[in-house]
Amino acid sequence: MNWTPPMTVSKDAHIVTSYDEALRDLDARIDRMGALAIAQTRDTIALVVQRDPTMATRILEHENEMNELEYRVNEQVVRVLALRQPVADDLRAVVTCLKVAGMLERIGDYTANAARRAPVLTQLANFPVRGPVSRMGDLVIGMLDDALRAFREPDDALASLVRERDEEVDALHASLFRELLTYMMEDPRTITACTHLMFVSKNLERIGDQATNIAEAAHYRATGTMISGDRPKGDDTFRTDPV
Amino acid sequence: MNWTPPMTVSKDAHIVTSYDEALRDLDARIDRMGALAIAQTRDTIALVVQRDPTMATRILEHENEMNELEYRVNEQVVRVLALRQPVADDLRAVVTCLKVAGMLERIGDYTANAARRAPVLTQLANFPVRGPVSRMGDLVIGMLDDALRAFREPDDALASLVRERDEEVDALHASLFRELLTYMMEDPRTITACTHLMFVSKNLERIGDQATNIAEAAHYRATGTMISGDRPKGDDTFRTDPV
Repeated sequence: MNWTPPMTVSKDAHIVTSYDEALRDLDARIDRMGALAIAQTRDTIALVVQRDPTMATRILEHENEMNELEYRVNEQVVRVLALRQPVADDLRAVVTCLKVAGMLERIGDYTANAARRAPVLTQLANFPVRGPVSRMGDLVIGMLDDALRAFREPDDALASLVRERDEEVDALHASLFRELLTYMMEDPRTITACTHLMFVSKNLERIGDQATNIAEAAHYRATGTMISGDRPKGDDTFRTDPV
Repeated sequence: MNWTPPMTVSKDAHIVTSYDEALRDLDARIDRMGALAIAQTRDTIALVVQRDPTMATRILEHENEMNELEYRVNEQVVRVLALRQPVADDLRAVVTCLKVAGMLERIGDYTANAARRAPVLTQLANFPVRGPVSRMGDLVIGMLDDALRAFREPDDALASLVRERDEEVDALHASLFRELLTYMMEDPRTITACTHLMFVSKNLERIGDQATNIAEAAHYRATGTMISGDRPKGDDTFRTDPV
């Protein structure tokens, strides 16, 4: 490999020359990953609600860019730590960028999983679950948007508002799960489609979890204190009556 | 908060006095998290295969320790970066410990999700899927065990062996998914139980993904080069015939 000057992001046109620019560059990549995650989540909803198969192609294209961006963020974080030895606020910003990049990449994975179900999802009969799915999608996209703003500022008050909304997403998933079970029991021909919809609903619920994780990273970036332990889980799909 | 001397892990009996000890302490916590993740995965298999409800309680108890350990690793990593400014191999070790702790915590989440399904899973009729589930479990536990050893050494050759096995897990999940669909169609009374088994199967498949991510972290720790892009995905459950 050719010699590259300090702070160059290798195989990348963007040459970072100063410490501040290196930090701004990290935030810019996180912003781009966040925009992709929101677009992929929107497209997942459109895939289910409008049964538009072109959404699947776009989600998977964005997924490649998402993976590439996470790779660049990891590379850049290690370079900044090695060459600039950041401390205090800057160190927290760099470490949280590393974690948040991983969270956003997971969101991309969840949407890609839904996209790969397109052959089944786009041929669904017109189930009434489209309403709940788009409500869940709007809620999750709102959480993600706020979590990313809370991380960018950073804004701890906004971050805590995101965390509160996660239980609502879990409850929507649980009720959608039970609704789908009833369709499957009433008409076994819907079983395959409904099971795939259950996984899409679970993926949306997990995107809400990741938005909450990003909000916790925003809290840490803003305050320097980490949130310990896990959150109350509202997902009680497993409390349905056993057969 | 009281003043704590450098390298003290706050609210923790273990006082880290030297740089080397700080790095050993990080690896020890990752080892403990790895042991917990393997135990939780074993218990998840026992929950399904032996329908032993006590497994669920143990998984959730381990989950609390897992979350606490991840919190300690994050805290310790930031402290080492701030006070010791590691470079080269040490920097890679510290950064990968941060990432691997997150991966192991995710594995705990997947097993906790299965544990919360215990009320349904432990009352299952005697499905023949127990064979595939324990095969999948053994494979995933083997991958996890090798990935953790590859990370500890670090051993890049062992790490690449782990990555190759992920597709086999994905294929087992896909065939189990299709098998469960047929049971649901033949006997609608099995629908609830089978959907929960599908999610357990998916959780095991995701544990395989995380073992592969740990192997990639081991590769980076060993070689200093990251693995870019995502892996070929063998999970084709979404290619089942649409209704």
